[in-house]
Amino acid sequence: MASFDSVDFHQKALQLCAYGQICYQNGWSPATSSNYSIRLNRDCCALTSSGKHKGRLKPEDILVVDMQGNELTEGKPSAETLLHTQLYQHDANIGAVLHTHSPNSVLMSHITKQDYLHIEGWELLKAIEGINTHETSIDIPIFDNTQNIEALAKEVDTLMAQQTVYAYLIRGHGIYTWGQNIEECFRHLEALESLMHYELTLLKLG
Amino acid sequence: MASFDSVDFHQKALQLCAYGQICYQNGWSPATSSNYSIRLNRDCCALTSSGKHKGRLKPEDILVVDMQGNELTEGKPSAETLLHTQLYQHDANIGAVLHTHSPNSVLMSHITKQDYLHIEGWELLKAIEGINTHETSIDIPIFDNTQNIEALAKEVDTLMAQQTVYAYLIRGHGIYTWGQNIEECFRHLEALESLMHYELTLLKLG
Amino acid sequence: MASFDSVDFHQKALQLCAYGQICYQNGWSPATSSNYSIRLNRDCCALTSSGKHKGRLKPEDILVVDMQGNELTEGKPSAETLLHTQLYQHDANIGAVLHTHSPNSVLMSHITKQDYLHIEGWELLKAIEGINTHETSIDIPIFDNTQNIEALAKEVDTLMAQQTVYAYLIRGHGIYTWGQNIEECFRHLEALESLMHYELTLLKLG
Amino acid sequence: MASFDSVDFHQKALQLCAYGQICYQNGWSPATSSNYSIRLNRDCCALTSSGKHKGRLKPEDILVVDMQGNELTEGKPSAETLLHTQLYQHDANIGAVLHTHSPNSVLMSHITKQDYLHIEGWELLKAIEGINTHETSIDIPIFDNTQNIEALAKEVDTLMAQQTVYAYLIRGHGIYTWGQNIEECFRHLEALESLMHYELTLLKLG
Repeated sequence: MASFDSVDFHQKALQLCAYGQICYQNGWSPATSSNYSIRLNRDCCALTSSGKHKGRLKPEDILVVDMQGNELTEGKPSAETLLHTQLYQHDANIGAVLHTHSPNSVLMSHITKQDYLHIEGWELLKAIEGINTHETSIDIPIFDNTQNIEALAKEVDTLMAQQTVYAYLIRGHGIYTWGQNIEECFRHLEALESLMHYELTLLKLG
Repeated sequence: MASFDSVDFHQKALQLCAYGQICYQNGWSPATSSNYSIRLNRDCCALTSSGKHKGRLKPEDILVVDMQGNELTEGKPSAETLLHTQLYQHDANIGAVLHTHSPNSVLMSHITKQDYLHIEGWELLKAIEGINTHETSIDIPIFDNTQNIEALAKEVDTLMAQQTVYAYLIRGHGIYTWGQNIEECFRHLEALESLMHYELTLLKLG
Repeated sequence: MASFDSVDFHQKALQLCAYGQICYQNGWSPATSSNYSIRLNRDCCALTSSGKHKGRLKPEDILVVDMQGNELTEGKPSAETLLHTQLYQHDANIGAVLHTHSPNSVLMSHITKQDYLHIEGWELLKAIEGINTHETSIDIPIFDNTQNIEALAKEVDTLMAQQTVYAYLIRGHGIYTWGQNIEECFRHLEALESLMHYELTLLKLG
Repeated sequence: MASFDSVDFHQKALQLCAYGQICYQNGWSPATSSNYSIRLNRDCCALTSSGKHKGRLKPEDILVVDMQGNELTEGKPSAETLLHTQLYQHDANIGAVLHTHSPNSVLMSHITKQDYLHIEGWELLKAIEGINTHETSIDIPIFDNTQNIEALAKEVDTLMAQQTVYAYLIRGHGIYTWGQNIEECFRHLEALESLMHYELTLLKLG
């Protein structure tokens, strides 16, 4: 059975509370939506419990799940737990995952008819790890929304085996992004929010 | 005559002050507009006094009214008191009511020519109690604005006897929403604000 | 020569500092723009000095001017001082004046080709003193921008002698509003900001 | 070799931290983007290190560089250091430089097809040092984005030798602005943000 260090868990739970407050204040996690996690080790991660106000998270609102989504501490894991564990299992370098319902991600995924959002030529692309020039583009995959999370996790896994994926959208639902640690993950989220805002504004301008 | 527990009243008055501050900071209650209430028991509720700055409510700005809208403590009940008591009388499960003048609710109710706002397919619908999938839709009734609150309360009552109503809009005026308690009520309000923001943005995109 | 109570001046200077902070945080007074005043008595008022950061006003940034715009305490009166004193001289009931460069007022005054902004049918009109129903309309005069403040003050005075004026706009510049005291004045400003936001959004929707 | 006063450096480092927090909270410096500097003397300036969260700058995130961009204290100078030192070398009156990735500057520079952004007739132009009337216009140069900062610095220098330049944009990237000191520089930035917001809104209105 997966084990973890309780001091490490407590510290990462506090980090999730702090980032929840930031995401909530940014309007990205309204009405108890969203879920966030940080890897504890190869076998388990700290994850937000389902249904909590994301701007007022307390350490007791964070639980530990193993990479199959079984809870190792008390709490009700998010229905979307497997979308977090898929990422940790797929790539050992992923240390944190933020999923939000930001208006930009909900709207851009709804409006875009293709199965990816193409973003090209903006300086802020360089905020994403591994990108060193604005003279590039990224395609953010868009998956149709579903209540079958297990099936969606498999779809994500298949796509990530085929191409470099920096983040993905779920249509009319929100964004998943990640990084080596929570700071990098949040930097990616902030950059993608700005990039989606640019694209949405261009659409408004027709 | 209706009676109430004064400690319970004081605690709920403090909650109304706190939620007033949040609603005001969100821009939903400008210029002393809006009114909020929490049920005390079968016979009465705590309600904001008329004409107060909603971001700076103090416990003395909250009064108790019975379900006919008569004040049981000092204060000037809102002109819209009967829209609160109608809800408490109609459904014993309703424990809190938030009415705001948020820009999204004012604008969507003005723009929408039908007598309901149709919202469909967004993940955030699941933040509303009783909805478990995004593959659904809700119709938010829109009533024409009036200064005859008693007549409007009857209209609302009639409609709620005929169909499931999660919230309603008053045209060019604002939104009424409710829940079993103030936390659920606010979650509904946040979700509806997000959903109306999505719909308004789609209208801007043409 | 006009005289004033120094304790009264100090209290009103503190109020102007507090409202400056609110207006700045709302984005209505960027880049040291805007000026605010409160009447001290029949003969003079407290007024913000020119060129100060409106979010960080200190009591020493407020001075006293008489109703001809002469300074009675140290400080550099705003170039627009006469637009404040015109209002106090015109109507003994006016106790406070807020002038801001809010984006809504700058844009609506620029876009509107007529010499008034017509606002009709919104519930929030009732936040303006003397209006008791949404079934009404107001016309906010729009004056062309000028650096000749004395001439503009006369134009305003002439118009106010002819019709009820709740506030006015200066094209591409900002809004002037007032009330019996600073609280009412700010309520009017908040209401007008909301009303202009509604109108601007309708224009965006085409 | 360039020398500097360490107390002066520490005070200016604290100022850069404070302005970083403001720029970040305004949404102008997301995802560790942006860089800011204050002149120390003829030969060197205090500058933000590369890759830091701009809302949480600490004094140790600020370093000193000479006017050729060599670091005189520990830290990793921004890749865009030469765009700061070009300004200090070009004009002895420039005391501070703020470069941000604000959405308004990114979008207006992307949308505008000419090599300058023309801004005319707004009262807030008067917030820029040397402008005393709204009956004027300014042209903000727009340079194409590049990763060759040395070449861009020369382009800027050449243009500034030919015409009065109040600020410049880099396409899809951000804005550079400056002033005699950090307060004036920030006032310019706030004014330009407002002016770009006006112009962007007019484009949305078609």
